[in-house]
Amino acid sequence: MTKPAVELTIVGSIGIDTIETPSEKREEILGGSVSYACAAASFFTHTGMVGVVGSDFPQEFRDTWSTMSIDLEGLQTVEGKTFRWGGVYHKNMDNRDTLFTDLGVFESFTPELPAAYRNAPYLFLGNIHPALQLHVLEQVHNPKFVLIDTMDLWINIAKDDLEKVISKCTMLTLNESEAELFTGEHTLTQAAAKLLELGPEYVLIKKGANGSMLFTKDDIFLLHAYPLDSFKDPTGAGDTFAGGLMGALCASGKTDKEAIREAMVYGSITASFGVEEFSLERLTQLDRDEIEIRVAEFKEMCRI
Amino acid sequence: MTKPAVELTIVGSIGIDTIETPSEKREEILGGSVSYACAAASFFTHTGMVGVVGSDFPQEFRDTWSTMSIDLEGLQTVEGKTFRWGGVYHKNMDNRDTLFTDLGVFESFTPELPAAYRNAPYLFLGNIHPALQLHVLEQVHNPKFVLIDTMDLWINIAKDDLEKVISKCTMLTLNESEAELFTGEHTLTQAAAKLLELGPEYVLIKKGANGSMLFTKDDIFLLHAYPLDSFKDPTGAGDTFAGGLMGALCASGKTDKEAIREAMVYGSITASFGVEEFSLERLTQLDRDEIEIRVAEFKEMCRI
Repeated sequence: MTKPAVELTIVGSIGIDTIETPSEKREEILGGSVSYACAAASFFTHTGMVGVVGSDFPQEFRDTWSTMSIDLEGLQTVEGKTFRWGGVYHKNMDNRDTLFTDLGVFESFTPELPAAYRNAPYLFLGNIHPALQLHVLEQVHNPKFVLIDTMDLWINIAKDDLEKVISKCTMLTLNESEAELFTGEHTLTQAAAKLLELGPEYVLIKKGANGSMLFTKDDIFLLHAYPLDSFKDPTGAGDTFAGGLMGALCASGKTDKEAIREAMVYGSITASFGVEEFSLERLTQLDRDEIEIRVAEFKEMCRI
Repeated sequence: MTKPAVELTIVGSIGIDTIETPSEKREEILGGSVSYACAAASFFTHTGMVGVVGSDFPQEFRDTWSTMSIDLEGLQTVEGKTFRWGGVYHKNMDNRDTLFTDLGVFESFTPELPAAYRNAPYLFLGNIHPALQLHVLEQVHNPKFVLIDTMDLWINIAKDDLEKVISKCTMLTLNESEAELFTGEHTLTQAAAKLLELGPEYVLIKKGANGSMLFTKDDIFLLHAYPLDSFKDPTGAGDTFAGGLMGALCASGKTDKEAIREAMVYGSITASFGVEEFSLERLTQLDRDEIEIRVAEFKEMCRI
């Protein structure tokens, strides 16, 4: 049997997380930006994962990915410990504190793309050091659409590298506070205008349970988050959103604004499932029909 | 010339405000829930104002209302001082502290509706003591649609009265934190479910710059706020939203879900103009065409 072609490549972190919420504590669960993003994207397209794990990485986590449409040729296994992260959520889960970060093999990670990934037309540069994001970008041939994510750390300590790689991407995504930190602007429209000047055609600002906003030089698209009765763990929601978006966009074969609006809906709905359980527990039990049912329900909620 | 009929009655507070934002301080400006709400509603329908001012109330504030389609027969002028409120907004204007509250003549206010208002089919009970809201409700004859607003104070000290009057209204509106305070629920869907059990057909939760959510027992409508480059003063935004909503709904002559969705758009857009300046300064300079242009732009932003 021929392996399906990888049309979407995603690079990012792989972690073993310890997460405490007001009601529950879970230790040593599968996490990391590329894990969440690939899982989300895999509902829509066969997705190539680029990341690194240590020799301690549990086989069951590998098996979790293998049950999904995720290609693991880009996954490096290196002697040493897998990246570990611990965090505790505040009451209402709107903020969290990091308890510990052990980089392990992630510290010396250099992402290398398998030959089969280099012609993939869609690329998602998940949150890693911008110099590594640039290194990935240099390995791909004429991608049609490149999404880049980042975090406050890189805005603070590697802004020049970050601006350089952003200028080569189609879309930048970050959350509200990162947009403010990056630009010094207090309103999102003004922050987005400054970020668009760096070169990307689109700026996507994530607002968690308050939805997201897509900016171009000419217009704005406003998207809600699906209202949940309850959720267990918001970790990775942004990565799940972005992964689902890129998966759906890749599946459409398009890159125009209408296709992006539609893909954002799919990303948002996939993320709404993801947060219902810890780690990938809900996503591994999810099927495409459930996504379609909730997408239809959500569109009716947003219809004016 | 015959006076136009009052189809919408609004009751609430009238205040003289002193407001400090991070960039500006303004003293003794026109404020109060019924002032903002009537100004917003007046773009869509002739609106009857029910409120009280003291003998110190400036003629220029009366003139401000007179230039709009606001009927002042329900305005009481009583010997004494007008209600005064002072507040200071935090950085980013997402929160504020009250500096002083001088109730003045508002303390002994008993709203009495002129005969001409008692058959108005639309009624907005702005934020006053729930016992007074009930008193107003007892004066009207078979209203088609009654919206009620409230605040944390009444939830804390007059919850029984509040629940009683809410049970007789069509729609309850409150903000996120009030919904949580009222119900003890941390997610808005769960809070809304409890509030619907009190009797109203609709619960409208306001989320400021993050939009609003309309709940019924069967469905949810999600509405964004119009993204502004900048704004000067968020005071009264919720009242302006609710007033615009009720004005537009009254003008439609309808009370069904589709009409309410459309009316919420008009309310939200009217509020987006209101916050561009202090007090009613922007609303008195606004015309209906500007509202229509922004409504069309906003709908395109929300289109999936």
